Amino acid sequence: MVQLLEGHPWFRIREVAASERSARKAYGEAASWHLANDPPVDVRSLEVTDCAGRFESPLLFSALDASVAADIEGRLRKAGHLICTNARNHRMDPDVPLVIPEVNPEHLRSIDRQKAEYGGALVANANCAVIGLALPLAPLHRRFGIRHVVTVSLQASSGAGYPGVPSMDLIDNVIPNIPGEEAKIQTEARKILGRFEDGAFHDATFPVSASVNRVPVLDGHTLSVFVQFDSEGTPEEAIRAFEEFEAPAAVRELPSAPKRPLAVFREADRPQPRRDRDLGRGMTVSVGNVRADPRFSVKFTSLVHNTIRGAAGAAVLNAELLYREGYLG
Amino acid sequence: MVQLLEGHPWFRIREVAASERSARKAYGEAASWHLANDPPVDVRSLEVTDCAGRFESPLLFSALDASVAADIEGRLRKAGHLICTNARNHRMDPDVPLVIPEVNPEHLRSIDRQKAEYGGALVANANCAVIGLALPLAPLHRRFGIRHVVTVSLQASSGAGYPGVPSMDLIDNVIPNIPGEEAKIQTEARKILGRFEDGAFHDATFPVSASVNRVPVLDGHTLSVFVQFDSEGTPEEAIRAFEEFEAPAAVRELPSAPKRPLAVFREADRPQPRRDRDLGRGMTVSVGNVRADPRFSVKFTSLVHNTIRGAAGAAVLNAELLYREGYLG
Amino acid sequence: MVQLLEGHPWFRIREVAASERSARKAYGEAASWHLANDPPVDVRSLEVTDCAGRFESPLLFSALDASVAADIEGRLRKAGHLICTNARNHRMDPDVPLVIPEVNPEHLRSIDRQKAEYGGALVANANCAVIGLALPLAPLHRRFGIRHVVTVSLQASSGAGYPGVPSMDLIDNVIPNIPGEEAKIQTEARKILGRFEDGAFHDATFPVSASVNRVPVLDGHTLSVFVQFDSEGTPEEAIRAFEEFEAPAAVRELPSAPKRPLAVFREADRPQPRRDRDLGRGMTVSVGNVRADPRFSVKFTSLVHNTIRGAAGAAVLNAELLYREGYLG
Amino acid sequence: MVQLLEGHPWFRIREVAASERSARKAYGEAASWHLANDPPVDVRSLEVTDCAGRFESPLLFSALDASVAADIEGRLRKAGHLICTNARNHRMDPDVPLVIPEVNPEHLRSIDRQKAEYGGALVANANCAVIGLALPLAPLHRRFGIRHVVTVSLQASSGAGYPGVPSMDLIDNVIPNIPGEEAKIQTEARKILGRFEDGAFHDATFPVSASVNRVPVLDGHTLSVFVQFDSEGTPEEAIRAFEEFEAPAAVRELPSAPKRPLAVFREADRPQPRRDRDLGRGMTVSVGNVRADPRFSVKFTSLVHNTIRGAAGAAVLNAELLYREGYLG
Repeated sequence: MVQLLEGHPWFRIREVAASERSARKAYGEAASWHLANDPPVDVRSLEVTDCAGRFESPLLFSALDASVAADIEGRLRKAGHLICTNARNHRMDPDVPLVIPEVNPEHLRSIDRQKAEYGGALVANANCAVIGLALPLAPLHRRFGIRHVVTVSLQASSGAGYPGVPSMDLIDNVIPNIPGEEAKIQTEARKILGRFEDGAFHDATFPVSASVNRVPVLDGHTLSVFVQFDSEGTPEEAIRAFEEFEAPAAVRELPSAPKRPLAVFREADRPQPRRDRDLGRGMTVSVGNVRADPRFSVKFTSLVHNTIRGAAGAAVLNAELLYREGYLG
Repeated sequence: MVQLLEGHPWFRIREVAASERSARKAYGEAASWHLANDPPVDVRSLEVTDCAGRFESPLLFSALDASVAADIEGRLRKAGHLICTNARNHRMDPDVPLVIPEVNPEHLRSIDRQKAEYGGALVANANCAVIGLALPLAPLHRRFGIRHVVTVSLQASSGAGYPGVPSMDLIDNVIPNIPGEEAKIQTEARKILGRFEDGAFHDATFPVSASVNRVPVLDGHTLSVFVQFDSEGTPEEAIRAFEEFEAPAAVRELPSAPKRPLAVFREADRPQPRRDRDLGRGMTVSVGNVRADPRFSVKFTSLVHNTIRGAAGAAVLNAELLYREGYLG
Repeated sequence: MVQLLEGHPWFRIREVAASERSARKAYGEAASWHLANDPPVDVRSLEVTDCAGRFESPLLFSALDASVAADIEGRLRKAGHLICTNARNHRMDPDVPLVIPEVNPEHLRSIDRQKAEYGGALVANANCAVIGLALPLAPLHRRFGIRHVVTVSLQASSGAGYPGVPSMDLIDNVIPNIPGEEAKIQTEARKILGRFEDGAFHDATFPVSASVNRVPVLDGHTLSVFVQFDSEGTPEEAIRAFEEFEAPAAVRELPSAPKRPLAVFREADRPQPRRDRDLGRGMTVSVGNVRADPRFSVKFTSLVHNTIRGAAGAAVLNAELLYREGYLG
Repeated sequence: MVQLLEGHPWFRIREVAASERSARKAYGEAASWHLANDPPVDVRSLEVTDCAGRFESPLLFSALDASVAADIEGRLRKAGHLICTNARNHRMDPDVPLVIPEVNPEHLRSIDRQKAEYGGALVANANCAVIGLALPLAPLHRRFGIRHVVTVSLQASSGAGYPGVPSMDLIDNVIPNIPGEEAKIQTEARKILGRFEDGAFHDATFPVSASVNRVPVLDGHTLSVFVQFDSEGTPEEAIRAFEEFEAPAAVRELPSAPKRPLAVFREADRPQPRRDRDLGRGMTVSVGNVRADPRFSVKFTSLVHNTIRGAAGAAVLNAELLYREGYLG
């Protein structure tokens, strides 16, 4: 997130906070940095404060661990902040919008109720794999309606954070489970594709059947997706829906928005994580190998860069939309 | 196959044949051998003959490439041989049994018709991924009936043969397609789980929805499987069906039969290819992470050693059953 | 170690000890077990005691972490135990033998001095990479004398223990450092190839220049080795020295001793870790690609299974030699 | 090479040639393209001609396979072309300069003799691993003199071209040999670091001892390097020599020249191929873990992006220097 905000046209990092353990160190010293480039110079020297403290910035980004996010985010919301969070804790709260700007920007309208109640508000982005699912489902849902979705994910090592998965578990191997992940995929996509009406979220009603795997890939979650439509729809029509899908005008011009939210491959062997995860600077979700199935309307492969579009980039894009829509005051 | 037949109590390799290019070389010289141990001494010195020639052995094993298998196997069947084949060409022929001894040994009865028509007969084993699917489906099909199966495979590198997939395509990557593979999975499992009655095969009627991926794993195809039953059935009952599944007595005592055709893991993160592929000397299929789903009756992970149970070992086991049932003599 | 001792003809595990944290649990519950097979049944139910306590067994195996090994092993030595240790702490002590049974079994004679001084004695095995170096150097040292050794290691993930190296650090990557490892390689091989005379160890005098790397391999440390001889010696003569190398008769018949300590490959592209690490049930060190060099007498590749011959198997083999030589009383 | 020349300020691709098999196809159709981006639009539609034909461009780039490069390059040199070649065939020819612009640009003066004799001239770049060796050796050679170099390479999969190394050979494995590679490393670095005087190349006299390995890494050759200096020199002084090393002014401003030819890491665990190969858009060679050794003056790790600085980028940089120095007429 720090890297994505470097040189941002609208936002500047003024405060960084962490646990008591890192407090009072310089960020450059406290952070366990695993990216190719060094942390930005101006952030490196910022003194890390304790998350338990107070902040001046109206907009906060939360990449807190789920074990502490619920409490800290709740407290900061009451302190009047607008918080873009990547933590899972509040995603399914009945008053917290779970937003992909290209898909359900209108869910942000729910913020007013939060502000009225707490003073501040939380805006969540979805789980990394969910973003790779919900983005391509959006144009299908609009055009054909969706009755049932099955997805199996092949998730990258970086999705588990650092140090994450031991190499002894992932060399020449697959781990057919990621604790808690299936439940997120089965619920979050439905909230994103649902409606915000009469002051409440109405989740999409189609069931999502998910099965998750960890594979020896560094970045990029690959999803095999099967979709049963409500109405008729061929693979060729699905490809057209993907190709014609675009973000609302207000979203298209956000600094972190990719030119096209979806890249569509006609090749049967694409997208592939190593070759395609960086499309649109990691903000484009790729789909390909769209084809017929004996039972479903269509099946295809989807790919999302899990640490960019699936995490930090998603939070930044949400913040940009909040700023552009005037929610930051 | 040569390795699996080394020291076999019933069979001895007397003839080896290949294309014109390898003919007249010693096997040890002609074979491109990629296993840890060397070829068995007595086979190493056998002179390779041309597949176009004649053979003395009543039983033949075919590991021919699909581009030539149809013709050669057809000719050898007319020459009166009983041929256990791993090639895909004749698997779905209306008179060729596609057999997993633990699942549908009674399909061998169809051989008589072939013998009557051609003099000899072909017995096929299924595609490697199919065996990892059909074996665990068998006890579910018997106990609950099956209405719909969805499976996504994470297939190992060795499934493509040697040299197969370039390392440049598989390091830090997934390839979301294997040409021709989905069609096999969608048809072969239904033939295996179907009935042989009134001299004809009646495929199981449930549709199979498949999506396949190549992952950076050496051996062992992992499958995420979702099953809709015809009748009620819980994950716990499915586990019991897996655990109680056993081969018919005649099959259990075949030299290559594993003690149990299915190993059942209660852990959510098993089976894993590197840790579990060698169970039962590679002949046991593992299942685990059996659980509920919002829409299907049950979902689980299955694992098959693709070059042993999924290929050579399958052919040898079929041959052993043929021998035991008296078809060889 | 527990796995290697399962069914051992001479030894039986009667006591298992660990830190206070694991004490009073059953071993099967306390151990974080990462091997394919389950822990042996009789060990699984042993109650883990605290390393700070007392033991009944005359022979102890220590796989303690270096952070605590010095103290605990010292105390147990004073309590009269004979301790075969894989920890690095005491390896270079002037009174502790560092033994590879095939290479320097006579170093065990130093035990008497330890016993006299402490009541018990420590016997160390070398660092995993060192065993892959010292074993092939032994026949060269005897036949040609050694003036200088250069070695670069490509070490496997499992050498770091579990959880060890994060997969995020090892996918599509090499880490050109392992803290503390080079110093061990540069000193331990010289002690092993040195003499025990007049009650003291006299290390071999040739310098060892080492550089270490971690590579994306599960098991098996590969070493590129360059050797300058004291006298003339060709690659072909080095190969003969490797081939003719054998353990003393007393060692050859130890239960864990491989048939041959060294396997010699004539192929230029062997040994390879995945294909050759399991030779001799992981107790054989492989060498190959033995060839000339513009400056050194010879260069070659060596391979050792780091968790078997390079750790647990080494300790067990040392214990077997102690038993056979009557040191266990 | 085609990708690196896209949008080049000085050069434009006007002709593309290949074997008879590809001739008369459009480049976009004939090329087996394995990079993330598509081929540049203007090149995609160029008709591929036969290498046996004639060319209009004064400057040619050759990425020919060694099996055909000798003949074709010889013929084109006689036809008056200036040819920047990545093929190995003519590198060690007594009249062909082997150039790294930052290291030995003066070797280009040898071209005049070639032109006088043949009409045209060949300019070679070194083998990919050699460039990762010779670049960091250059400042050490100048400052301290070099008596002996030992290097062990850990080379990436892409160094073998496509399809190259089968994934079955590289998953969980190391291959301790690359045919022909050691000889190149042992000779080419000495030519590059030698002098061009009195119309002839005088190779540096220090021996290079090399051992090569293929590792499961996509891009980036890692080298462990040991150097014995002629004079005194500490690791700290070597680091300073690395840090102070810069290209001649004329080279520094070439379009493809990186800001600094060498990046120096103070960390012991860097450079690492995945993290550091792209420095300087793949044109910077990284060194790190510079330290003392029991016998050598210094040892360190070097890293080169094998397909950019080690191949195509090297040829383009050579061509830029030729153009800037007026050799293109």
